[in-house]
Amino acid sequence: MEVLEQIYEGKAKKVFATDHPDYYLVRYKDDATAFNGEKRGTIKGKGEINNRMSNLLFQYLAKNGVPNHFVEEVSACETLVRRVEIIPLEVVVRNLAAGSMAKRLGLVEGTHLDEPIVEFYYKDDALGDPLVTEDHIRVLHIATPQDVEELRNRALEVNRLLLAQFLQLGVQLVDFKLEFGFAEDGQILLADEISPDTCRFWDIETGEKLDKDRFRRDLGGVEEAYQEMLRRLLTGGAQS
Amino acid sequence: MEVLEQIYEGKAKKVFATDHPDYYLVRYKDDATAFNGEKRGTIKGKGEINNRMSNLLFQYLAKNGVPNHFVEEVSACETLVRRVEIIPLEVVVRNLAAGSMAKRLGLVEGTHLDEPIVEFYYKDDALGDPLVTEDHIRVLHIATPQDVEELRNRALEVNRLLLAQFLQLGVQLVDFKLEFGFAEDGQILLADEISPDTCRFWDIETGEKLDKDRFRRDLGGVEEAYQEMLRRLLTGGAQS
Repeated sequence: MEVLEQIYEGKAKKVFATDHPDYYLVRYKDDATAFNGEKRGTIKGKGEINNRMSNLLFQYLAKNGVPNHFVEEVSACETLVRRVEIIPLEVVVRNLAAGSMAKRLGLVEGTHLDEPIVEFYYKDDALGDPLVTEDHIRVLHIATPQDVEELRNRALEVNRLLLAQFLQLGVQLVDFKLEFGFAEDGQILLADEISPDTCRFWDIETGEKLDKDRFRRDLGGVEEAYQEMLRRLLTGGAQS
Repeated sequence: MEVLEQIYEGKAKKVFATDHPDYYLVRYKDDATAFNGEKRGTIKGKGEINNRMSNLLFQYLAKNGVPNHFVEEVSACETLVRRVEIIPLEVVVRNLAAGSMAKRLGLVEGTHLDEPIVEFYYKDDALGDPLVTEDHIRVLHIATPQDVEELRNRALEVNRLLLAQFLQLGVQLVDFKLEFGFAEDGQILLADEISPDTCRFWDIETGEKLDKDRFRRDLGGVEEAYQEMLRRLLTGGAQS
């Protein structure tokens, strides 16, 4: 397989075309940003960790019936994925209130929610990725109501699977962000990544944060937290 | 009827108990605020205009099947209303993009929406009345999904009735904010007010703004705009 031109460069990944019309190559970077790009830095080893962790989780989800873009890990930082047209929505699932939701609604971080909730944010850096309602998504023609319903159901299914997985690893999955895309055949596939960049992970016993909030909030031990999450996944049951 | 103790003082109205257990007295003020209280001022005659205009519109809506809190106008600035427990949601209906929605979604003010949309904002001054989704409303126990559905349907029905009414008066109803409350018998009633404080009105021919945006944006002619809206309602068909 030959790697061709760069299609896209995001905050944490580059995406390249390949000589296979249905596949892209994703290359993970160590670059970290927060607060819509206002804070920038590097997390050493993040590219490798997020690549491996995402791939383990995508394989686990595929085995459990969640179609996604994973094809093959091709190097420590690089993965072959199905080519999709990303739907410009960040689909966020929350089990506990934290981050922007806690701030928006005046809730203490860690407040347990009666049931998981799904939020949609419009992927637009210039607008600061605003929270949008299903009415907004419809009138902006971002997605049809049927697609939104499907995204919601897929996201909740991913939550059920990941919650159980991380519980076994002594980790509370607080919230996470997913992205989806349309494959050539019109099927909606889970895409992007699932990693400490895109999830909040709290150690169940100590409450310690094992995710990008250590970077966002200058808590120190950022690299160690990413390493610890990968270590737990590798020694735990992600492949099962 | 005797007016008893003050129950509540808002930005534009005071509410008093009366010797009738089911009725409150609302007294409209000339005070104007904008941007969550950051901007303050006075719009001379606003209290009388908003009182009269709201009452005309509430009577029109009641005749057309929208139950609401209006009982009787008792003076130029005062109205007797059914006592309700206000649901802490601002229910916003939009026909064109304007104000916070245009800003949030990067739309040119005046962009026509394919169909009217309904937004819910959590009434909490300390939080800045944030936009909330139906999931937020459910997990915060602000209202049940059934109640939210009813609020949405009522709001869209009010929009159909008001759009037609204002069209006859040469006015484009751009958007408006409603509040609802539970009466003693559990019935949901439309409450609060409908006025240039709570609606965006644009003259259909000239595009001139005839609402509180003249105050918010320092456009001048604030009092004249409020007077003009009441004049059109009185000479038009609001009572029909």
